[in-house]
Amino acid sequence: MSETTKKYRIAVIPGDGIGKEVTPWAQKALEHAAQGVADFEYEDFDLGAERYLRDGAILPDEELERIKTTDAILLGAVGDPRIKAGVLERGLLLRLRFELDQYVNLRPSKLYRGVTSPLANPGDIDFVVVREGTEGLYCGAGGAVRRQTPHEVATEVSINTAYGVERVVRYAFELAMKRRRHVTLVHKKNVLVNAGDMWQRIVDRVGEEYPEVTHDYNHIDAATIYLVSDPSRFDVILTDNLFGDILTDEAGAVVGGVGYSASGCINASNEFPSMFEPIHGSAPDIAGQGIANPTAAILSAAMLLRHLGFDEAAARIDAAVEADIAELGSTPRSTDEIGRDILARM
Amino acid sequence: MSETTKKYRIAVIPGDGIGKEVTPWAQKALEHAAQGVADFEYEDFDLGAERYLRDGAILPDEELERIKTTDAILLGAVGDPRIKAGVLERGLLLRLRFELDQYVNLRPSKLYRGVTSPLANPGDIDFVVVREGTEGLYCGAGGAVRRQTPHEVATEVSINTAYGVERVVRYAFELAMKRRRHVTLVHKKNVLVNAGDMWQRIVDRVGEEYPEVTHDYNHIDAATIYLVSDPSRFDVILTDNLFGDILTDEAGAVVGGVGYSASGCINASNEFPSMFEPIHGSAPDIAGQGIANPTAAILSAAMLLRHLGFDEAAARIDAAVEADIAELGSTPRSTDEIGRDILARM
Ligand SMILES: CC(C)[C@H](C(=O)O)[C@@H](O)C(=O)O
Ligand SMILES: CC(C)[C@H](C(=O)O)[C@@H](O)C(=O)O
Repeated sequence: MSETTKKYRIAVIPGDGIGKEVTPWAQKALEHAAQGVADFEYEDFDLGAERYLRDGAILPDEELERIKTTDAILLGAVGDPRIKAGVLERGLLLRLRFELDQYVNLRPSKLYRGVTSPLANPGDIDFVVVREGTEGLYCGAGGAVRRQTPHEVATEVSINTAYGVERVVRYAFELAMKRRRHVTLVHKKNVLVNAGDMWQRIVDRVGEEYPEVTHDYNHIDAATIYLVSDPSRFDVILTDNLFGDILTDEAGAVVGGVGYSASGCINASNEFPSMFEPIHGSAPDIAGQGIANPTAAILSAAMLLRHLGFDEAAARIDAAVEADIAELGSTPRSTDEIGRDILARM
Repeated sequence: MSETTKKYRIAVIPGDGIGKEVTPWAQKALEHAAQGVADFEYEDFDLGAERYLRDGAILPDEELERIKTTDAILLGAVGDPRIKAGVLERGLLLRLRFELDQYVNLRPSKLYRGVTSPLANPGDIDFVVVREGTEGLYCGAGGAVRRQTPHEVATEVSINTAYGVERVVRYAFELAMKRRRHVTLVHKKNVLVNAGDMWQRIVDRVGEEYPEVTHDYNHIDAATIYLVSDPSRFDVILTDNLFGDILTDEAGAVVGGVGYSASGCINASNEFPSMFEPIHGSAPDIAGQGIANPTAAILSAAMLLRHLGFDEAAARIDAAVEADIAELGSTPRSTDEIGRDILARM
């Protein structure tokens, strides 16, 4: 490697549960794929349940600032049953997505050859969900009065801005241009009329700038039906933060399990590092047994490489994963066996 | 019938699209099943898109008041592509659910013998979703500023009360006592911490009064996975208004199509009439062709009968439907053919 080679600093946040088991394999795949291509340095961040239980820290400002100076983040999963729901999710995972303004949550869904879908006739599934990542019901707006009394009232507020919606809509249309040129907006505009109407107007307006891209609309409830009855109809699904969360887990199930679904939390204007993570959670029920599938985490390493412009290195990971699944997808293997098998193919 | 027989007045609101095609069959099934059992009178309400386009009326107060004096409502579907999304849904359908305080939206999902599920191994699917019907994001709270400008901000507010949650939680536990004694709360408490925490606390507290009923919790995203990967795990799913909307459409797909899924919008304290409707919408894409499946509407007539205490009459409809599906479920038939076939079996 020449002396002028740019150094890339990657923040690694294994997090909780199976996040800690699969992230080392994602990092190994990254190291392997980057060899001779780029100079990657890894910086570990001890964040998540263990740290919180040890010293009460969730995401100290200095650590957030250091993460901001990195080039990309590899994340495992966040969430632990010993800690009240929301504390780590909102304090760590969502804080990262929001503070780093990762407004595109990119979630490809693909039925790999060799994977058995729970659907009898899955067809050819290959779509991407473009989930907005910094607005909606995830803002943390809302509160409660008279807690713990019979008069308690709890609210949750979805905040949506034209600024925030337009940038993710543009991203979706640009992405569609590189794919099959179809965008499906998913919302619930017949009930959530304020936000839904704004989303639809912005999609219609931006869509005019992309005459080659067709677009249509599904209510979220209808979309959950199509994911089961006709998933191959979708190319790019564009949706808000909560609907995207729901649809991508259902999509993960439809393509044979969230163990194959990677995601990128992308700051598409590159002001801050983007973050790559499997869409599965910390899975406390199977954590510690060494049986979690590291494939999604490894695929998120490929997304990271592609994001930084190393398309060929990314393609090497993708190809190794595809070959591994095609040949051994249905063979029960441990985390380490799958990781080693994929690495061996690279 | 004796002179002392109580008269039941049923409001019939066919509504829009295929609602107008399937509701007459629901009414016929009701008439047939009620013969010799109870004295039913039907009152038609011309509400929906046609009426709105004709005279601008959505749900005039006098009509709402007349509906309030009936014993139950048979509804088809609401929604028409010629009219801006939300106008009829919120002005008619949701207004009825809210004004009549139909706080239990009861949605059984059952895989009938003779129906082909899109799942390769569906197992034995038989659960009920108890969806809260009068709160959450369906309140119509929220708004927009700087509409149509780059500075537009649109909000949607989910309002949840201990009063509203507790009554539907109690309903779910009572229902579970008559079933397999398991309640699954579905929410997103790791993000929607205010509402989610309140739901969980109330479920825990009410659950203590039902020691025979076990209860657990799924995040909405995980629940959409289980509906595809292991739907037979569920007995009673208890959830809020929006999550219930989403889950029941996905569940409808999983049991072979929303054409088999009925629902009741129930005012369980009987201050106002309850309303029975198929969970499918007005389906403008197939409306007018006479091909909509009236089974869900007919099943909603059975739910209406059961709600009024006519269990045997309800069971007659259910049995006719089950026999029809078992024998002819996979035969393509028109709306009228299916309606006639089911009626003939009663
Ligand atoms: C852990 C949770 C906060 C998160 C989300 O809801 O976004 C997860 O479900 C995901 O999809 O990445
Ligand atoms: C038409 C619409 C307002 C309605 C809802 O969202 O409740 C429908 O989808 C349903 O599930 O009954």
